[in-house]
Amino acid sequence: MKGQRTRASILQRAVDLASLEGLEGLTIGRLAEDLRMSKSGLFAHFGSKEELQLAAIDAAGQRFIDAVVRPALNAERGYPRLVAICHSWLDYVRRRVFPGGCFFAAASFEFDGRPGPVRDAVAKQMDDWFAMLEKAIRMAKDEGHLDAEVEPAQLAFELNALLFGANFAYNLRHDEEAFARATRAIERRLESVRSGETPLIRPAWTPARPAPDFVD
Amino acid sequence: MKGQRTRASILQRAVDLASLEGLEGLTIGRLAEDLRMSKSGLFAHFGSKEELQLAAIDAAGQRFIDAVVRPALNAERGYPRLVAICHSWLDYVRRRVFPGGCFFAAASFEFDGRPGPVRDAVAKQMDDWFAMLEKAIRMAKDEGHLDAEVEPAQLAFELNALLFGANFAYNLRHDEEAFARATRAIERRLESVRSGETPLIRPAWTPARPAPDFVD
Repeated sequence: MKGQRTRASILQRAVDLASLEGLEGLTIGRLAEDLRMSKSGLFAHFGSKEELQLAAIDAAGQRFIDAVVRPALNAERGYPRLVAICHSWLDYVRRRVFPGGCFFAAASFEFDGRPGPVRDAVAKQMDDWFAMLEKAIRMAKDEGHLDAEVEPAQLAFELNALLFGANFAYNLRHDEEAFARATRAIERRLESVRSGETPLIRPAWTPARPAPDFVD
Repeated sequence: MKGQRTRASILQRAVDLASLEGLEGLTIGRLAEDLRMSKSGLFAHFGSKEELQLAAIDAAGQRFIDAVVRPALNAERGYPRLVAICHSWLDYVRRRVFPGGCFFAAASFEFDGRPGPVRDAVAKQMDDWFAMLEKAIRMAKDEGHLDAEVEPAQLAFELNALLFGANFAYNLRHDEEAFARATRAIERRLESVRSGETPLIRPAWTPARPAPDFVD
């Protein structure tokens, strides 16, 4: 049990380090230095750099689910939950759940050109995220909250792009307007496909612009 | 002269390597191994890893301008040029101008959490790109092609996010629809702010959906 707790807390630090310095920079040696542990002590937990990287991806995925997905599931299914997922994602970058910004955005751009188990593990996490987003869109259609012609894969592509765009503008460009810009764009896009028939509750987040169509 | 040509051709390889393996992985040793040159030979051109990284960013910036910006400047100023820039950017990823996808998208996500001259150089390149995009938007407004209330910074944020999103979907997720999805989203967004008063020529690229408002 103690060994498992130690492993888990080592991994939390590994994830933070990778989020700041890149997943490729996450070596047993670098982590040992950071934690002031012996390399042999770390090798007892992770047999290789790749094993450490894969374990860090898993731990980061769990942190992402806890920070982004679980809170959004409290919102009513349909349009409110779809809005809540987007809000939750922006909030997760704003709150620095990973100190260097979204772990998976960074890992995606870092490993997209490098075949191997690490790339595959990152792609699998992104597949899961897109599956979740597309499911939320389909549920919003099923509830009659979104126009029937909405293509879940297309809308998920656009929402994800705008979320990643906020992460980029905030972390690289230090654009203080990053979250407001993403919020405005997402809100406009979702409003453009919201079914006019169903009056919807105001989302839990404050839109950057007034949204007069929402019903209190 | 020969020394300058050698340096330039070394840099082209350095840029390709960095695009595949990351800018942080671009060390004098790694590049020497790849080029089958001696490390001391490379040190004669670049005094340090950081100097090599900064030179690679400059060279990548030049390649970006040649591949994306210059061709788009052939399009008529205003809406056609704005459309041409977006098309040119998607085409640049599709053509693998950098073998690992957009050099600057990758470098942005890699260095956004790491202060220092490399991060600053990447951010400067992105500032230049945004300035170019915003200027194209302002010119389209000045020509009367876009609604007067369009905010250049907001629209540039959205267009860039969708372009990066295509790069991500294509390179990490191997989504064959990546370019079509980005094209549809950009086209819809630009059409939504296109001034109804000015009939516009059909853009040089083929839209993913018919655009009946374009005049042949």
